[in-house]
Order: sequence, then structure tokens, then C-alpha cells
Amino acid sequence: MEKQKIYNFSAGPAVLPEVVLKEAAEAVVNYDNHSMSILEMSHRSAPIVDMITETRQLIHQFLNVPDNYRILFLQGGASLQFSMIPMNILTDDVTADYTDTGAWSAKAIKEARIYGKVNVVCSSKETVYNHIPKDFEQSSDQVYLHITTNNTIYGTQWFEFPDANGFLVSDMSSDIFSRPIDVSKFGIIYAGAQKNMGPAGVTIVILREDLIGKSGRDLPAMLDFAIHSEKDSMFNTPPVFAIYVVNRTLHWLNHLGGIEEIFEQNKAKAKLLYGEIERNPIFKSPVAKEDRSLMNVPFIFANGGDEKDFLNYCAKRGLVTLKGHRSVGGFRASIYNAMPKEGVKNLVDAIQNYSQS
Amino acid sequence: MEKQKIYNFSAGPAVLPEVVLKEAAEAVVNYDNHSMSILEMSHRSAPIVDMITETRQLIHQFLNVPDNYRILFLQGGASLQFSMIPMNILTDDVTADYTDTGAWSAKAIKEARIYGKVNVVCSSKETVYNHIPKDFEQSSDQVYLHITTNNTIYGTQWFEFPDANGFLVSDMSSDIFSRPIDVSKFGIIYAGAQKNMGPAGVTIVILREDLIGKSGRDLPAMLDFAIHSEKDSMFNTPPVFAIYVVNRTLHWLNHLGGIEEIFEQNKAKAKLLYGEIERNPIFKSPVAKEDRSLMNVPFIFANGGDEKDFLNYCAKRGLVTLKGHRSVGGFRASIYNAMPKEGVKNLVDAIQNYSQS
Repeated sequence: MEKQKIYNFSAGPAVLPEVVLKEAAEAVVNYDNHSMSILEMSHRSAPIVDMITETRQLIHQFLNVPDNYRILFLQGGASLQFSMIPMNILTDDVTADYTDTGAWSAKAIKEARIYGKVNVVCSSKETVYNHIPKDFEQSSDQVYLHITTNNTIYGTQWFEFPDANGFLVSDMSSDIFSRPIDVSKFGIIYAGAQKNMGPAGVTIVILREDLIGKSGRDLPAMLDFAIHSEKDSMFNTPPVFAIYVVNRTLHWLNHLGGIEEIFEQNKAKAKLLYGEIERNPIFKSPVAKEDRSLMNVPFIFANGGDEKDFLNYCAKRGLVTLKGHRSVGGFRASIYNAMPKEGVKNLVDAIQNYSQS
Repeated sequence: MEKQKIYNFSAGPAVLPEVVLKEAAEAVVNYDNHSMSILEMSHRSAPIVDMITETRQLIHQFLNVPDNYRILFLQGGASLQFSMIPMNILTDDVTADYTDTGAWSAKAIKEARIYGKVNVVCSSKETVYNHIPKDFEQSSDQVYLHITTNNTIYGTQWFEFPDANGFLVSDMSSDIFSRPIDVSKFGIIYAGAQKNMGPAGVTIVILREDLIGKSGRDLPAMLDFAIHSEKDSMFNTPPVFAIYVVNRTLHWLNHLGGIEEIFEQNKAKAKLLYGEIERNPIFKSPVAKEDRSLMNVPFIFANGGDEKDFLNYCAKRGLVTLKGHRSVGGFRASIYNAMPKEGVKNLVDAIQNYSQS
């Protein structure tokens, strides 16, 4: 009997392309015929420097990053950026505006408050973050406006970016490389790798050069964008293996047809799943229709039901890690770039059949 | 023809045991028969939580860590600890004493100065860090005394730890798990993984519980030992794969006979190599005899010579990454735990034969 194919709907760390996993495994034993594991190779050796440079170029190309931006590979996840960004950018004479659209936004706000004036310009907290606020007033002395482009837990996504008084700063951890974006609207984009591009352990930061080195603070070297930028992310040993997996994922994406193509695929997958959730009387979406994320799809029983039973039913079909986050309940299907359409189809079938049983 | 075996003498990222690389590669495709890659699995899933817990237990067991210490898995390398430690520990009313025994010590000193009173109690800088200073006076209001137990670049190692007025804080990045140590002499031990235990991307911090949460500073969550301790290193997504490689390396070490056994092997390898360098009239060690590191062995031409020629000569024999650090020149053989005795023997042979040619 053929082994059942497993589809992993985890919100992150999340599914990666099969070919990328094979290439990564090979590199752990013998990197690119160098008779050494990538784990053993110096980050300053030519093959690794070349690989990191190429990864930067791929990001540059895919997101059409303007030339006055730097691309950094850092550690500490989005969580460290929550403090690094205000530490480097937020001076005494200005205000940072934050939109509160979920748990991660709220964490970013908390960290920023340590470093300066923070104005929470809008929040959907009272309705369990079930929508993206559209009308809000920004501070007149705003340095930047922070948004979390996709809210993993609540399943909302910004489809239209607001015009910032200053510039946009954005946590794109869970939707980077899933759709085209206009980088020039953003002063800083940051993203942990473990959703749409690689394993936990590397954070990509794309930042406009003119924002570097103006904090007026005596920053530790590891928290200073100026140092990381000057040293091309080699101030200390970068997480080489995690960067390599990002590299291979971007090659996979390139082979597939790039950002425009994956965006079409992501829309198609989401349409399929939301369509069934809408149609099916047993389930419903807790999220405002116009803000429903293409990446994370929470759904709940329309009139109550046995959640464990549905999860078991799915697990038997190889559809796993579908449990919803405790703050929303029910179920959540994360359908990042690397989730094949087949996986979404199987989930839709399961929802259909479950409703019929 | 059989492919030539490559021995990698890199100072870090460095050689790892072959069996560990095979296990790591397998886990990248299918972790422990879960039909998922370890890169795709949630850090909060039972198999990953169990693996991280076991890794902590192995460290506990190997280093005989007393029960009033916590073991954390963080990101950012030793470089981030250079600032995190004073940020968390160094209050206004006390002094941190630092020993200056090399480039990494100097970086730690620079970062600590941002946060409080720092007293550099000794330095071997004037003699290009060729020895470990033995006689120095400590501050009477000392909170801790910082030492770098092994100096990767200069090839010196502390064999006898000083008695601190307060407690010892130590960067053990390049000799952790290479020899038995008495953890109770240290308030904090920290180590980046990429020398003796795994790939770049995870930092182990062992710290005494009573030192947690007393900074009096409003710290960002990611830089607060109290938060990481309370959340068992799961405040944000930890670098799971890097921790897994550490786990397998510790299993390998266990199978080998543990710390006492590897210490004997490390002494034997070092004796072999230093013996030849002493004997051989063409080469010499730049380091004071009593402080010569068991991990990193710099050696230089006694009376000049063509460095490139010797490096090529070695490379042809599969002995690679032997170039010395620019601040010492010559050559450097890093012979960490995972460097087989065979590799050291081959290098000794190369040195012998080269001298005869």
C-alpha cells in the first residue's frame, strides 16, 4: 500500500516545497559537491558568500526592490524586529503610528513603547480582530505607520495599503513572496522565514538606506541596522543553512513562474476553500469577507459541533495541524505558497464529505 | 578511484560528526517517521517539544549543571550575548570586570560599556594575545568577571579559571563540551553552536536562576532572560533545526563516552599536533606554552616561507581551511571534538613531509 500523502496546514513553521527539502537534505551531507556539509562551511568561504549574494539578488528581483534599499539576513525573528525597528528609527521628536490588527501587531506596539511615542491609530480588537480597520487618522508628526500585512491567527490581510504620512513599516512574516507588492511604499519590510520561505532562524529585513544610522542611540552592534548593513549581514556568523533553504525556495518559486504566478495560484486555492466554507451550512468564516487572508483560513462550526471529531476525520485523510488558534477556536488552514492545490482540494473534499455524513 | 577524504580545519562553522550530518539530512526530509520535515514542524508540536527538552537534559547531564540553573536556546550568537548579559545583569551600583584575551573579549567589552561600569582587569593585547594573563586585581564592587574560555583566533585557552569576587561569566563558544567544567563557578555560560556542537543559528545560555529579572531596565522581550526563562525558550519560534543538530551531536558524544572521554581524545590530538610543531624546525607556535588551546592551533613559519605553497600542499592531501587568521598570519588548525584523530595525524604527516621536501 502506498503511504498516505500528508498535507501540513500548520500556521508556521509550515509546509515547504518537496524539492527544496530534498536539496536541503543533500546540502547537509555534501554542499554543491564541495565534499563538506553546508553546516560545516565558513560563512566567509566563497561558495557561501556567493549563495547569500544570490539569495539577495533573487529577493531583489522577485520583489522589484529599488536600488536604494538594503536586504539583510538577521536572527531573532519578527519578534526581535519589534524592538530593533523603533530602537533604530524612533527618535524623541516624532511619533510612530501602529495599527492593531492582531496578536503580533499588539506585540510590536508593546515593544515600540519602550523606545518612544507610539500612537495606536486603529484597532479591531473588540471584534476579535475579525477585520482590517479602514478609516483612521494618522499623527501629524508621524515617522512611520506600522502594519502587519497578514494576520496569521485571525486570518485577515491588508489588500490595499494605506498611504502613510511618513513611510510604511511592515511585518510581512506570513505573506512575503505570496503576491506582488510595491516596495517603494515601505521604509522597512521584515519577515521571519518560517511561513513562506524557509525554516525558523532567519529574518529578512528590507530597508531604505536613508533610514540607517539615525537613531541617535548608542546601540549594541547586533541591534544596529548600520552595522549589519555595512557588514552585509556578516557582522557575526549568519544562519547559513536557513538562508540556503530560502535560496532554494526562491529558486523553486522562480521555476514556477515567479510572484505573479504564485499570486494567481494562491488566489485560486483561497477561492476554492472559502467557496466551500461559504456554501457549506455546517461551517462558516469568522472573518469580514473583504479582508479574508489568502494565507490563513480560519473557519468554525456555524451551529456548534465536535471539533475533535472533525480534526480526527481530517487527520485520517492526511490533512493535519488544522486546529484553530485558541483565541479564535475552530479550525485554521494555512495555505502558504508551498501548499499544493491538491492539498486544498483534499481539504475541500473532506469538508464536503464531513457535512454529508 | 575512491574519493579523497576531506578534513575541514575551519575555526567555525566547523566540522561535525558524519553520523550527525546523516541524521540531520534524514530529518530534513522525514523527521522521526512523522512524514514531515523537521523544518516544517511546529515548535509547539509534541515531537519537537520533546526533542528540545531532551537536548536540555543532555546538556544538564554532560556538564553536571546544578538544579538552580536554567538552560536557554536563543538566537543571535555570542555577539548578541555580549550586550544581553550586561543589559540584564549590570546595574548602576556595581562594576563588571572583563579580561581582554582576544578579539571576542574586546567585542564583549565594547558592548558592556554601553550598559554600565566596565573595568578591564587585564589584557594580553600588546603581545598579540599570545598568552592568558594570570595576575590581575579585580574590582571590589564587582558583579561578575568575564572570561573567554578559549580564544579561537589566537589559540589560547584558560586551563585554570580565576576565582571571581562576584561570579564568572563566560563565553565558551569554542570549547563547550570539550572538557569537564565546574558550572557552579559560573553565573552565566554562553556559547554559539557553530564550533563544537552544531550549525550557526542557536546560542546556548546556562544561567543561575537568581540572576534573572534583576536588571531594573525596561527590556525588549527578546532581550530579557526572564521572558526566555519563563517561556522555556519558546517566547518566539526557536531555531528548531539548529537545536536538533545540537541534540544529535550530544547523542554522538554520549555514544563516544561523554565529556571525560572526549577530553582525553582532545588532549591526545593536541599533543600530537603541538609535538610536531615543536619538533619541526620549519614551524613554530606563536603561543605561550602553558596557554596553548586544545581547540585551535595556530602555527607559523619559524623563519619565513611561502604560506600559499604550504596551504596548497595541504589542500592536495584533503586538509583544508588551514589559513591563519589575518591578525596572527600563518596557519591555524581547529581540532574541535568532531575532528577525527585521523585528520590530525594526516596534518602531522603533511607538516613532517613538507619539512623534508
